[in-house]
Amino acid sequence: MSGFVSLVGAGPGDPELLTVRGLRRLREADLVLNDALVDGELLELAPKAQRFFVGKRAGRHSIEQADIHQLMIRAARRGQRVVRLKAGDPFVLGRGGEEAIALEEAGVAYEVVPGVSSALAAPALAGIPVTHRGIATGFVVVSGHAEAAYAPILDGIAPGAMTVVVLMGLAARAAIAARLVARGWSPATPAALIHGASRAGAITWIGTLEMLGEAAFVTELPAVIVIGDAVALADRIGAAARSEPAPAPARRRSTTV
Amino acid sequence: MSGFVSLVGAGPGDPELLTVRGLRRLREADLVLNDALVDGELLELAPKAQRFFVGKRAGRHSIEQADIHQLMIRAARRGQRVVRLKAGDPFVLGRGGEEAIALEEAGVAYEVVPGVSSALAAPALAGIPVTHRGIATGFVVVSGHAEAAYAPILDGIAPGAMTVVVLMGLAARAAIAARLVARGWSPATPAALIHGASRAGAITWIGTLEMLGEAAFVTELPAVIVIGDAVALADRIGAAARSEPAPAPARRRSTTV
Repeated sequence: MSGFVSLVGAGPGDPELLTVRGLRRLREADLVLNDALVDGELLELAPKAQRFFVGKRAGRHSIEQADIHQLMIRAARRGQRVVRLKAGDPFVLGRGGEEAIALEEAGVAYEVVPGVSSALAAPALAGIPVTHRGIATGFVVVSGHAEAAYAPILDGIAPGAMTVVVLMGLAARAAIAARLVARGWSPATPAALIHGASRAGAITWIGTLEMLGEAAFVTELPAVIVIGDAVALADRIGAAARSEPAPAPARRRSTTV
Repeated sequence: MSGFVSLVGAGPGDPELLTVRGLRRLREADLVLNDALVDGELLELAPKAQRFFVGKRAGRHSIEQADIHQLMIRAARRGQRVVRLKAGDPFVLGRGGEEAIALEEAGVAYEVVPGVSSALAAPALAGIPVTHRGIATGFVVVSGHAEAAYAPILDGIAPGAMTVVVLMGLAARAAIAARLVARGWSPATPAALIHGASRAGAITWIGTLEMLGEAAFVTELPAVIVIGDAVALADRIGAAARSEPAPAPARRRSTTV
């Protein structure tokens, strides 16, 4: 009876940005419960596992949070190794805390395996450091899925004081931009929209807060919004941040300095 | 001449929380430049690399940032695979942006490999979700190493509006706590100090903002400070978040439901 649940952060999408522990848990898993944002490629890393999609998708009937808890608890009680695979990091806007509490209350053994959050990886891979000496000594991460979620945070920060990263905020981008400008942010503040960071077909739009609401982006795409002067660094770092090394040479060069 | 620099996030310390790509880059590296916070265990993952410590340590003469840039650039120009291994994520308070710009300006091919930031992993492994439904819909991450770095951020957020994570702020914890209370934060706001997250010998202290300044913590330890109502969830999630599964069974049980 060694059932166990691992709440694993899948990272931003590219399977190579999964952690070594996350990979090991997937390989040993009997059951994987995954979200909508988790790529199929990641699921292939769990060859012997039964896979169950428990994500929420616009316009489709989706599983309730309590049902996810029951699935994990029941599987662990029958002795299974369960991986609850969550996009990004399990504790960043992903209801991972609720899942941990449910497991704890059910007396099920579990662990949290932190992951690379899209809130950091999406800007990084677009060449945007969320902090940078002389530009931003801090950053805030907020959910943009509902006004009730983002209003207290965005209203609670001084204009221009830090880099702002909004997850799940694409549909609300015009409202978010207008809100910040009304609060005193300069309309010329650099802003970025990043979709599919770390994956093939990634899209990066860079403009200003003023332009953000009008940015022609298909609103169904999940995307990360980044606002602040640090965004302008993408001009200097940009695409190189996503380059790849040439295949390792078969023989070492013997050059010295 | 396929020299290449990878700015790799090492994660919070445990080698298993390195990404799969980070591990691959270490294995292929000719040269590794590492920080003070990077564990020796991680360096063992780069068996064929020359290793060079470029970290800053209190009371010791330390290498200048510009020298780090030159080391990377020169090594890449002689065709080496360089890994610049940075604690946590390269772009979170780690001067990774400056290193990327230096490489870009030198015309050296490079990439950024995001890592698991201690700002998220330290709270997570202490059972603290930085966001949680009904408690915190966002969080801010700030450097506590100097008043000039943290004052504009801490003064710029509304009391209690979000979870606050302070990196490198242990020595300034009393000043930070007093500053927040003076700004209107409740002295009873839950607060945590976490040292060595993900590593053997990790220490977690949990109290309140009022107690934070007096917390008996050896100030030389690097630590992560977490402030906000979400900290109280550690009571409900806590140690279980750090548990480990039993070794995988040799044979699968045949139980069904």
